[in-house]
This record gives sequence, C-alpha cells and structure tokens, in this order.
Amino acid sequence: MKKLKVGVIGVGRLGYEHTCNIANRVPGMELVAICDGNVSRAQQVADELNVEKIYADPAAMCADPEVEAVAIFTNTASHVDMIRIAMEAGKHVFCEKPLAENVEKCLAAEEIIKAHPNQVFMLGFMRRFDKSYRIAKKKIENGDIGKVVLVRCYSQDPRSTFDSYLPFAPTSGGQFIDMSIHDIDLIRWLTGSEPKKIWAIGGCFEFPQFKEWDDGDNVSCLMQCENDVMAFMFANRTAAHGSAVETEIVGTHGTLRIGATPSSSLVEVLSENGVCDECYQDFVSRWHDAYITEMEVFRDYVAAGKVAEPTVYDGTKATRIAYACKESFLKNELLTLD
Amino acid sequence: MKKLKVGVIGVGRLGYEHTCNIANRVPGMELVAICDGNVSRAQQVADELNVEKIYADPAAMCADPEVEAVAIFTNTASHVDMIRIAMEAGKHVFCEKPLAENVEKCLAAEEIIKAHPNQVFMLGFMRRFDKSYRIAKKKIENGDIGKVVLVRCYSQDPRSTFDSYLPFAPTSGGQFIDMSIHDIDLIRWLTGSEPKKIWAIGGCFEFPQFKEWDDGDNVSCLMQCENDVMAFMFANRTAAHGSAVETEIVGTHGTLRIGATPSSSLVEVLSENGVCDECYQDFVSRWHDAYITEMEVFRDYVAAGKVAEPTVYDGTKATRIAYACKESFLKNELLTLD
Amino acid sequence: MKKLKVGVIGVGRLGYEHTCNIANRVPGMELVAICDGNVSRAQQVADELNVEKIYADPAAMCADPEVEAVAIFTNTASHVDMIRIAMEAGKHVFCEKPLAENVEKCLAAEEIIKAHPNQVFMLGFMRRFDKSYRIAKKKIENGDIGKVVLVRCYSQDPRSTFDSYLPFAPTSGGQFIDMSIHDIDLIRWLTGSEPKKIWAIGGCFEFPQFKEWDDGDNVSCLMQCENDVMAFMFANRTAAHGSAVETEIVGTHGTLRIGATPSSSLVEVLSENGVCDECYQDFVSRWHDAYITEMEVFRDYVAAGKVAEPTVYDGTKATRIAYACKESFLKNELLTLD
Amino acid sequence: MKKLKVGVIGVGRLGYEHTCNIANRVPGMELVAICDGNVSRAQQVADELNVEKIYADPAAMCADPEVEAVAIFTNTASHVDMIRIAMEAGKHVFCEKPLAENVEKCLAAEEIIKAHPNQVFMLGFMRRFDKSYRIAKKKIENGDIGKVVLVRCYSQDPRSTFDSYLPFAPTSGGQFIDMSIHDIDLIRWLTGSEPKKIWAIGGCFEFPQFKEWDDGDNVSCLMQCENDVMAFMFANRTAAHGSAVETEIVGTHGTLRIGATPSSSLVEVLSENGVCDECYQDFVSRWHDAYITEMEVFRDYVAAGKVAEPTVYDGTKATRIAYACKESFLKNELLTLD
Repeated sequence: MKKLKVGVIGVGRLGYEHTCNIANRVPGMELVAICDGNVSRAQQVADELNVEKIYADPAAMCADPEVEAVAIFTNTASHVDMIRIAMEAGKHVFCEKPLAENVEKCLAAEEIIKAHPNQVFMLGFMRRFDKSYRIAKKKIENGDIGKVVLVRCYSQDPRSTFDSYLPFAPTSGGQFIDMSIHDIDLIRWLTGSEPKKIWAIGGCFEFPQFKEWDDGDNVSCLMQCENDVMAFMFANRTAAHGSAVETEIVGTHGTLRIGATPSSSLVEVLSENGVCDECYQDFVSRWHDAYITEMEVFRDYVAAGKVAEPTVYDGTKATRIAYACKESFLKNELLTLD
Repeated sequence: MKKLKVGVIGVGRLGYEHTCNIANRVPGMELVAICDGNVSRAQQVADELNVEKIYADPAAMCADPEVEAVAIFTNTASHVDMIRIAMEAGKHVFCEKPLAENVEKCLAAEEIIKAHPNQVFMLGFMRRFDKSYRIAKKKIENGDIGKVVLVRCYSQDPRSTFDSYLPFAPTSGGQFIDMSIHDIDLIRWLTGSEPKKIWAIGGCFEFPQFKEWDDGDNVSCLMQCENDVMAFMFANRTAAHGSAVETEIVGTHGTLRIGATPSSSLVEVLSENGVCDECYQDFVSRWHDAYITEMEVFRDYVAAGKVAEPTVYDGTKATRIAYACKESFLKNELLTLD
Repeated sequence: MKKLKVGVIGVGRLGYEHTCNIANRVPGMELVAICDGNVSRAQQVADELNVEKIYADPAAMCADPEVEAVAIFTNTASHVDMIRIAMEAGKHVFCEKPLAENVEKCLAAEEIIKAHPNQVFMLGFMRRFDKSYRIAKKKIENGDIGKVVLVRCYSQDPRSTFDSYLPFAPTSGGQFIDMSIHDIDLIRWLTGSEPKKIWAIGGCFEFPQFKEWDDGDNVSCLMQCENDVMAFMFANRTAAHGSAVETEIVGTHGTLRIGATPSSSLVEVLSENGVCDECYQDFVSRWHDAYITEMEVFRDYVAAGKVAEPTVYDGTKATRIAYACKESFLKNELLTLD
Repeated sequence: MKKLKVGVIGVGRLGYEHTCNIANRVPGMELVAICDGNVSRAQQVADELNVEKIYADPAAMCADPEVEAVAIFTNTASHVDMIRIAMEAGKHVFCEKPLAENVEKCLAAEEIIKAHPNQVFMLGFMRRFDKSYRIAKKKIENGDIGKVVLVRCYSQDPRSTFDSYLPFAPTSGGQFIDMSIHDIDLIRWLTGSEPKKIWAIGGCFEFPQFKEWDDGDNVSCLMQCENDVMAFMFANRTAAHGSAVETEIVGTHGTLRIGATPSSSLVEVLSENGVCDECYQDFVSRWHDAYITEMEVFRDYVAAGKVAEPTVYDGTKATRIAYACKESFLKNELLTLD
C-alpha cells in the first residue's frame, strides 16, 4: 500500500492535532512537509514529528513535487487563498471547516474546485466522521426510526474553557457562524433536506459584551425544512458539565440521541453528588477519533479518485444558512431562504 | 384534623383516578358524593368506594350542604358551566385542566371566580406538583443553575396508546391546545416570564388525517419570552419508548433535565438490545403521585383560605398562548403576542 | 367493599409511617386503634389521624372485638410476644421484619401460627412488594433472562444518616442480621433455592467500634445455593451517594439490575460534577410505595383467607442464614448449612 | 525523536491488532520485522503494512541487529521460550498476557528477566492502560473514595461471540485462568494488596461440556486480601448485552464503577425496548485504545531505561492466584494462600 504524502499548512492548536494524526495515527498517510508563517513553530513540530521539510510560504510547499495532498489548518480568512494555491499546484486538498468567512468567498472556492475536477477536495465537518454520528446515520438510513421528524442540535462549549475562548470571540463571527455551522451541516446531512424558513433568537444572559459583537451569549434557531422536517439548534460557550454537543433525531418510530450525556470515559462516580458521569472538557478530546477517521476517509477518496464529501457545496450552503440565522437573530424576524 | 368533604363531577377515565385518590389516598379529604350524567357509572364507582350519595345533576350535588368542595373532571366544554354552578353554590372548586376550550370561556370563568373571593379555586396543571418538577423548581429558585436561558419541553404520548387516542383526536383541539398547554404552563411557571413572540411549525409525517383537523402529527414551537428567555416545545402522540414528557432547563451555570429517560421503575434490563430502561407507557401512571399531591395542595389551600395556584388566570393565559401557537402553525407566520 | 379494621402496636419511626399508610393510603383498611407503651405518643398520633381508641397494653387492644387485624411495629425483641397475644386473641397479624432476634424465638412463632390456621400471618419483607422487584420477579418467571446464575445484593445505608444509626448499632445484631437479612430473603425469593455453603468476611475500615460489637463496618458474603446458583451480598452504612439497595440477577440469557442508580426522581443535574442522578437519602422514602403495597397485599390475603407470603417460615429461614453469616464472619471459615 | 524499532512474533487475531498499532498508531515506534510460523500470513501482513523483513524463526528475527524490541503475541505455551530467545539476544521485550500457562514457567521467566537487568520487560495486562481504569486508579490514589473496601470484577464475553470462542475453550485453562486473571491483576493493582484466602464456586448452568474441562460456564470467587479488603470476581462468556468487563471499587467515602454500562458509542436508542445503550460486542473494540496506550507506555519505559510495569512478578502472582481459584472451585473448599 502506497502512502499518501501530505504537507500541512498551519500548525496552531487544531492544526497541530491534525498534523500529529497525519504523522502518527493515520495508516497510509505520510507527513512530508510542514508550512507555517511562524517558522520556528513549524521547525519545532517538524523536529517532534521527524519531518524534514519546513516552509514559511504555502506556495513554496505546494510547488514541492513530493507533496501529493495539502491539508489546510490556517485561519478561516485565508482558507480560500490556500485552496487556490494548492489546487492550482495540482494537489489534493483537505480544508478545515468553515470553508470561508462569507458566502462570496465560498462561491469563489466552488469555482476553483470545479476547475480541477481530477483533484480531490474535502471539507472538514468532522462530526460526520464521529463513530456515534455514523452509527446514527446508519440507523436512520436503515429505517430504524421511521421517517425523520425533528432534529435537535445543541453545541455547547464548556465553561471550563470559556476564558481561553474569549479573545477569539470578537472575530469568530459569532455563535451561528462559528458553532452552529456544525449543526447546520448535521441537519442537512441527517435529513437530506434544506431549511426553507428560519427564526433565530437569543440574548446576553450573562456577558453583555456579546451584544457589541452582534451576538448573544446564548442563541437558538428553529428551522423548517423543505420536507417539513423541523430542526432546532441551540448554542453557547458556558456549559457547566462539559463539551456538550448533543444531537437528537426524532423519527416516527423511534428516536436517537447522541451525546446527551457526553461521558468522557466508562467511569461512574458515586458520591454525595449522586451517580455522576464526568464529561469531555474540550472539543479536541471529544472529537479525537473523528479527526483521525476524517483523514482516513480523505485518504480513501484520494486513493479511489472519487468526489469527496463533505463537498465545497456543503461548505457554501452551511455558510449561507449560518448567515441567515445571524440575520434573523439581528432583525428578530422570520426569514425565508431561497 | 377535620376532613374536607368533597363531591366529584365526572368519573370517566381520569375522573375515576382522581376520585379514587380523593377516597383513598389523600389524607384529610373525604369523598361524600359522586355526580355523573351516566348514573349507573356513578353508582358503580360509589359502590366500589363506599360512597352513599350519587347524583346525575351537578346542580343538585352542589346544593348538598354536606359537600364543601367540588372537583370537576367533566369534558372540557362543560368546565366553565360546572365552575359557575359550584361557585354560585358556595363551594370551593378544583377543576381539571384545561380551563376551557376557548379564551372567551376562560374570561367568563375569571369573572365567576372573581365574584366569589372567599372560595378557593384551583386549576389542575398537575405537572407543577410532580416531585421531579418541584425539585427542579426549587433548584432554579435556589440559584443552582444561574439565570434561566432556555426551557425545552417535549410532550410525547406513547405509540402504544395511540389507537385509544385517535377517536378523541378530531375534537381534542389539537396538539398545541391538548398537549402543549401543559408545557406552556411549565414555561410560564419555571421562567416567571410570558412569551412575546412565537413561531409554530409541524407536519403530517405519518398520519394525513391530522391535516383535516388543522393539526400536525408532529408539531413544534419556538417562543421568545419578555425577558429574552427562549422556549422550545415539541409534541406528538407516537413516542416509541413511552410517555415521554421531558423538560430541560438550561441556565447560565447548569442545566436540569426532567424525564429525559422516563424510567417506570429502578430496573435496568441488560439484553441483546443493550442496557435498557423501560419507560412509562401511560400518562396516568406517570403522574399518579402528582395527581395525589395536587389534591393535597388543594386541601391545604382550602384549609388556609389562601388563593390557590395555578389560578384561573394561569388557565386563561395558557389557553391564549396555545391558540396563538395554533394560529402561527396554520399561517406559518411569526406572531407577536400582546 | 368492607374495610379491614386494624389496630397497630408501636408508633415509633417506621411504625408511624405504617400507621399513616393504614389510616390514609391503603384503600379497604381502617385504622381503629393505636397501642404504644408511650401513651402520650399514642395519643398524639391518634389525634393526628382521627383515631378514637388508644391503648398502652397490647393485650387490651387485642381484646377489643372491633379490631380484626393487628399490625406489629414494636422492637424486634417483643415481636414474638406480640404475635402470641394477637394470635391468641383471634386476630390476623402483620409483623414487621425481622421475625425475631434469634432462631429459637422464630421457632416459637412458628408454633403459635401453626396453632391458628384460620388466621392470616404475614411478615414484612417489604422489598418483595416494591414495584421494581416485582417487575424483576415477573421477568425471571417469564424466562426473560434464562436460568438464574448469580444474584448480587448490596444493602448500603447512606452516610448522610450514619449518625442517627450509630446509637442503635450495638444492639442491632450487626450488618448480617439487621441489613443483609433483607438480601437473604430476596435471594431465596428470586432463586427459589436455599444456600448450602457460605463464607462471610469483612472488616473495620473506618470505624473500629464495630469490632467491639462483633461486626464489621463493611461486610460481604458469598453463598452457594442448592442448585449451584451463586449469591453475593455486601453491606455497610456509609454509602456516599444514598440509600443504595442494589440487586442484580444474572441469567444465562440476560441480566436485570435493580437500583444500581437509586434515583430519587426523574431529574438529572448537569453541573461541573458531570451529569448526575441524585439518589434516595433514606430508606423510608425509598420503600414508601412498597410499604403501602405490602399492606394492600395483607388486606387481600385476609379477604381471601389465604396463607400469606412471606410466611413465618421465611422469617425463620432468613434468620438462620443471617446467623450463619455472622458465625462464618466471626470464625472466618466456610460453613455448610443443614 | 528516535523511533523504537520493533519486531513482532505472532500475527494471529490479537497479534495482528497489536502489529497494526505498532505500524500505524503508536508514535515513536517503527515496525521493522514480522515473524510468524505461518510465513504466508507473515508476508500478507508485511505487505499490508509496508514491512520489508519477515521471518519464520523467532531466533533469526531476534538475531537481526536492527530489531531493538520484540513484542510477543504467540500462543501462551510458547511465551517463556520466546522471552528467553529475545532476552538472550539483547532485546527489550513486550509479552502479551498471560505470562505462561503454569507457575513453574512463570518462575523460569522471572530468572531469565532477572539475568538481563538492562533490558526492559513488560507484560500486557492492558486493562491497566485503559483510560477509564487509569482515571479510576488516579481517583483512588487521590483519596477521592477514601479507603478501598471492596473490589467487584465481572469479566463477561458476549454471547454474540460465544461460538467463535468454543473451539478454544478446552485448552484455554478455563474461566479463572483465561478470563479472571485480568481481574486478579486489577484487584492487586487497585488495592495494592494480595489475596490471602479465597473461595471459588460455579456451575454448568447451560453448557454441560464445561464440566469435562474442569470448568463452569459461570464461575465466581470471593477473596479476602491481606489488608482485609474484599474482592469478588465473576466470569462467563454469555453476556447478552455485550463485552461486559465491569469493575466497581467501593471505598469508605465513595464508589467508582467502570464499564457498568459498556456503551460502545454516545448514541442512545429510544425504542419500544425503552432507552437503550448499545454495548461493545468484542473485546478488541473495547480495548482498542488501551492496546495502543500500553505500547506507548512500553516505548516510554524503553526510552527511560526504567523497570516496566506490569512486571514479570505481576504475571507470576496473577497466575498463582488464578490456579488457586481453580483449585478452590474444583474442591469446593476455602483455600489459604501463602
């Protein structure tokens, strides 16, 4: 089995996690190059992972003929530029979500990718590759719960990591664009339908500064899909119990719940607090295996030369809907999507 | 301790349950009279419960000086008439929910009750008296979860009893008025706030006949309250796992879930299906203790001569909101409440 | 329906609970007399429950022709005397567990009861009447778990009530006779078999004073039954999470667990401790409904004139086994039962 | 970071799993050689994992100077021979459990390993490296549950894999030596104490053929440790719900349960069976991450030149106790260990 030779761009927090996976935990992948504007950081990671080539300039790395695939873990604003550089250099591309920070850039990405039909492009909505979500998807497809009626999605980051989030809050795009976009992708994926009407609400229940960022510290949205399926999303960054990504799919003949108790292990603690399940305290731990699986899936798409999912269009659609949520929230109006 | 002497009107399914409670399970109450248009049914229950007096005519029973309090378990359409008869006869009144089938009648009930300020009136939103809901309410008041942000309410009757429900469906008023009205009351009670905007949606996912009744077989509603608290309701009659009344209260510092797993006992079954909790299969079992507690509370209000809660106004408000949900659902529009 | 007229002896803590049940929560029973050596206590309870007759002397109450059945809630040492007085006065008898504090007295009770075959005698092993245990028993009888292989029984009282227990500890007979006797009865009832070999161990892990009482603060016992079914018991009084009576029945085709998470309500608390179920904190709350059901069952046995279960022989056998456990524990030897 | 170059012996079912881990999932390890008596199997795995060197003869592989460490995954009977060959060739050694099929061979292994004090030897009791067990161990060491009082260990393989187990049953050594040996190691590790007295029982409840193998289809054992800590073990191969390795540690101030519900994902299924957690159906899935972690730990021991745990002595002690369990079971006697 030939290994897919990968160069990565961006080895910040999540990029580092992905890079370690590519180097050590994804069979059939070989990490051959690391690119980061911060060269000393690139060097440090390269040393740790026994990688010889480091780059400061993405274009230089993409010009390296040894690199077959490029994985993009830079800040959102640069995603489409990186996609262009890598695609035009003939590489397969994996890009961390979100595709871009606005719809226009998403459409630009679509054009680039359409122009290179023989290269694989895959977008990193990793929840689709989580074991639990895959089991749920299979049960739905298998008809185990009948017809899907309601999808309920909570995305709550733990209060324990709130302080480390705050510096990024003003530029994150807000709860809908930064958090709920995962849920928007899940809703589209699990229901096979598109939202047609949405109403988003929320407020600043604890942190008035969210108002300055045109955001709420707790927000929610009700969606009506084209096939009348209902979807409800809720997001915040202050869950006391942990990294609480919870999804429920109610069908006419059964219901699936994912992560309602996001236990971080099989330990139960019996104490004066009762019988307790301790929960994941950070998203990187929660999705550790999903991050590996999505790389394996990317590797397989490349090997098979097949169109990868999630596609660039999934990225555009999710972004479009997230912006509509934000607009509905800011206007407090019911919006009809095209 | 003097016992409160109670006469009941209506000994159908739920009326019978209440009547047995009054006779046998509520200390400090004595069942002295049974009234039912179906006299042979009244006789049968009276024989079983050792009650001497039976009546076919509510006015006749209310004229009986031995009867101190009247408990009304007739069909909804007759509630306000029964309230009038009992109140004008000088009795304390307990009335099963809902107060009436429309807002006009609710307002009429308000007038009657206002005219008899020395008699106790109490409306039977029994969920407020369920042990689990009382614990939750106490924890909220105690500040355990910080400020309330979101209340999520599911009211699902089990599929196992769907067939017995169907004959009542066309005249029930529909999911919002018959099922969600409980959740509307819970939302008002738990948040101390009133909804100001609502959007209700739904569809006929399995049973097209609901459309003929201006209803959906699965419906939901998002509400924005005056203090920006968010509330989401969902209702159907086809929950595979059981009588699934679930309420979640998300606060800024913690979350409470009630009935997420509505276990009917402390037994876990380990089988090829996994580790399973079997659930309540009918609402009478689920709320058995709450029905007793609400009668004890009514008894105590009478003894103390205090204004009882839930009040007649709680009945009017919940009815008004339920009709607004239905209107929003039928128009598929966002509604602003006065 | 004629009501069974009951006189009670002993209105201490648990006696008071039972007496309230008989007065107010058991249809078809009427509390007509209260006997307690502490007359002012008897008077107080009689006033509260609207009972006219009070007695200081059990024989006097048993001579009252209005009293049809006598319920004994006195201290264990007096049980057999009370049974004799009531039986010889021609009354039906309900007696709280344990039957007696030694096997000799149990055998004496057997003789008394055998001499009055037309009067009902029932022993209060209330766990048999708990909803969860009845469900489990039914599933076993129904063959749902195949053949029973292992019964595991934990009886843990909560640490929160440890201080109130301590004064009774020296005279309680110890963990096996006071706590595990319930589990011994459950094992016999659930397996339909008798232990043939036992080995009991334990120690003083926190409270050296238990040693003075020939006891351990934590003890356990493995039993081999006649049909080779295995049984394991564990007891203490210091469970951090609550009143933790847990029973597991492993069968060849499935397993049942009762009370592994002894949730006191349907509330889940999501906090920095994780997702927590709060548990019962006292045995009276845990078994509240079982105490009522066992009285209803006693009432029905009397009405039917049938031999009641648990029988006096169940009391003798459980006592004999409990003493064998204690003997094995004290000698640290394997014992063979006759 | 220099990679540790590993050669493996034995690529059967579990050996293959380990070999894939070494090749692809353990950072800092490099798989350089594969040895298997079945050369075509060795070749097949080598091709799949891009390994150049294959061997049929363990001695030949151990003579390869490129190989720094040898991982032994052969059948139990050959373990000590393999340890000798690898140790005498100067390699570090990882050996899958159990150390050997009898105590004499264990003692021989001790001698070999003592003779090569500068080489690392580590025994594969992988449960010690499972995330949940590590969390539990840490909480115990941290004093979270006070003093340990009771350890309860269940090792149940799922009924779903029973047929694939049966061919190995006659030569497996039986439940105590093949299954409970893991629990024996856990008890020693979690309590820091050694059993001093044991009594083991069991029977053939469904499969009479176990009797021919001097075994029971369901067996259990109660142990008294030197510090009076109690331990209870139970084993079978027919758990309806899955791969049910469950461990409970009761302390004086709290209790930990591991794997009481061995959920294979974060999905809950709400169906007519209730609210269900589906469980692991095979031990390789259950311990997948633990197998990786133990290799990482072995790598770190080698890098640090430290004595590894579990040691060869842990292997001998667990084997000695397992044989004592079997002896007690066969004689139905209480045994005192030296």
